[in-house]
Amino acid sequence: MLYLIGLGLGDCRDISVRGLEVVRRSARVYLECYTSIMFVSKEELEKFYGRSLILADRELVEQGVGEVLELAMTQEVAFLVAGDPLAATTHSDLILRAQKKGVEYRVFHNASIISAVACSGLQLYRFGETVSIVMWTDDWQPDSFADKIENNLSRGLHTLCLLDIKVKEQTVENMMRGNKVFEPPRYQSVSEAAAILLSIVQRRQEQGCSYLLKNDSLSIALARVGSETQQIVSCTLSQLATADLGPPLHCLVIPAGMHHMEEDMVKCFALKQQPHPIKNIQ
Amino acid sequence: MLYLIGLGLGDCRDISVRGLEVVRRSARVYLECYTSIMFVSKEELEKFYGRSLILADRELVEQGVGEVLELAMTQEVAFLVAGDPLAATTHSDLILRAQKKGVEYRVFHNASIISAVACSGLQLYRFGETVSIVMWTDDWQPDSFADKIENNLSRGLHTLCLLDIKVKEQTVENMMRGNKVFEPPRYQSVSEAAAILLSIVQRRQEQGCSYLLKNDSLSIALARVGSETQQIVSCTLSQLATADLGPPLHCLVIPAGMHHMEEDMVKCFALKQQPHPIKNIQ
Repeated sequence: MLYLIGLGLGDCRDISVRGLEVVRRSARVYLECYTSIMFVSKEELEKFYGRSLILADRELVEQGVGEVLELAMTQEVAFLVAGDPLAATTHSDLILRAQKKGVEYRVFHNASIISAVACSGLQLYRFGETVSIVMWTDDWQPDSFADKIENNLSRGLHTLCLLDIKVKEQTVENMMRGNKVFEPPRYQSVSEAAAILLSIVQRRQEQGCSYLLKNDSLSIALARVGSETQQIVSCTLSQLATADLGPPLHCLVIPAGMHHMEEDMVKCFALKQQPHPIKNIQ
Repeated sequence: MLYLIGLGLGDCRDISVRGLEVVRRSARVYLECYTSIMFVSKEELEKFYGRSLILADRELVEQGVGEVLELAMTQEVAFLVAGDPLAATTHSDLILRAQKKGVEYRVFHNASIISAVACSGLQLYRFGETVSIVMWTDDWQPDSFADKIENNLSRGLHTLCLLDIKVKEQTVENMMRGNKVFEPPRYQSVSEAAAILLSIVQRRQEQGCSYLLKNDSLSIALARVGSETQQIVSCTLSQLATADLGPPLHCLVIPAGMHHMEEDMVKCFALKQQPHPIKNIQ
């Protein structure tokens, strides 16, 4: 049996009680580490679970999956994923391969930012399409996510913006030389994401276009949702570009028109209650 | 301290390890019972937690909240909610009142159908606005949710349809007489929801309109997600109208165009693998 077990968002004790039961009794326990980042270290998890964990990077899952499934045919194997185990594309692949081989699987769902974003005070049923904001380089500055935000705004829907993560990236030089040396992981901050959105707003103004997203549009920044150091700040997009919400993971919400109750909740997170510019509030 | 603790979707052991710690040590433990339905009985939960639970209906939360918050000023109080604790509107109200009174609060997120719907094989970032399908009566047959589905389809986005729940409803007679007698709870099934969508498709055809949603549109029915008896079936909307997926909760997904990997996953749930009409497959 293959168990895909979600670990939730902010604490090693966010695993469900039945998830922990399975982890403790499984023949082998993998910790997925390429589509999501962990909010705690492998060592902390190992200590809490009382089990040693095998880090599963993309290579292991794509090439070593045969061995994982072979074991799961006769024994219990746990595959741990931060957040909800099915939020990332590649696990569909793992499930399809398991089904093909006749390996039974179970999914233990857990919190994901897709639903936990309700802590912003906004109602989940008023969100439109989720977008991903990518890190810009000098040569590559896509902006299709801004069209999606615009489309949501025009329909009165909020937008959850997931921010870019670069893990196991190689420099061009290392890639050309075939050196398996990886750059330190990088996580886009809300201020970086806000700066990109502001550039897009400026581009559009220069083109003489009229859009709903503006420099003074309300935005809600969320950092480390679900953890003890969670932070939520609401301010304008311009203000956000100079804010520092501390360590990752961050995400960003662009709200559309809000209901009365949503407004009251969002006011609680207003920047005026914070020093400005925000610097590592913890 | 007030803890809002999500219980997840399908099993009493879906509470997180830290959620259980809080439940076991709190001065008082409330179980919210009016915005969501429990997949297990209060008694089973009490047995598992080793604590007695106070059922919190709308009346208690709206009128008795003062007492709850009074206690939370000096002691730990747990407020348990099926799924994720912030998926329902009314808990914003509870949080706002807590903040006004200076009561600290913490939210322990958990799985919600909003993210767990990824078990359908569809990618979460390809979903548009979530809709709610309401039970029709002879006099009241709204169809605005169908416009939202249509809008999502036209943008290539899937739609999660939450189905109607009627709890603590009174007959007009009992209401007029002031009898506090409530009808048994009713939960809309996927077949009832499909029948409503088919009626809307027919209305539109009679009006000569052309829409993307049709009788033979692919739909994915989900029942009891996250539980041991979870069922997922993909078939046409017409076929779904005669399907029986057993006890609640059900929900329905109307997929837009699918990616290759999504198609492969959805095929695994195809109706051809099931007897037809589906009757209480467990």
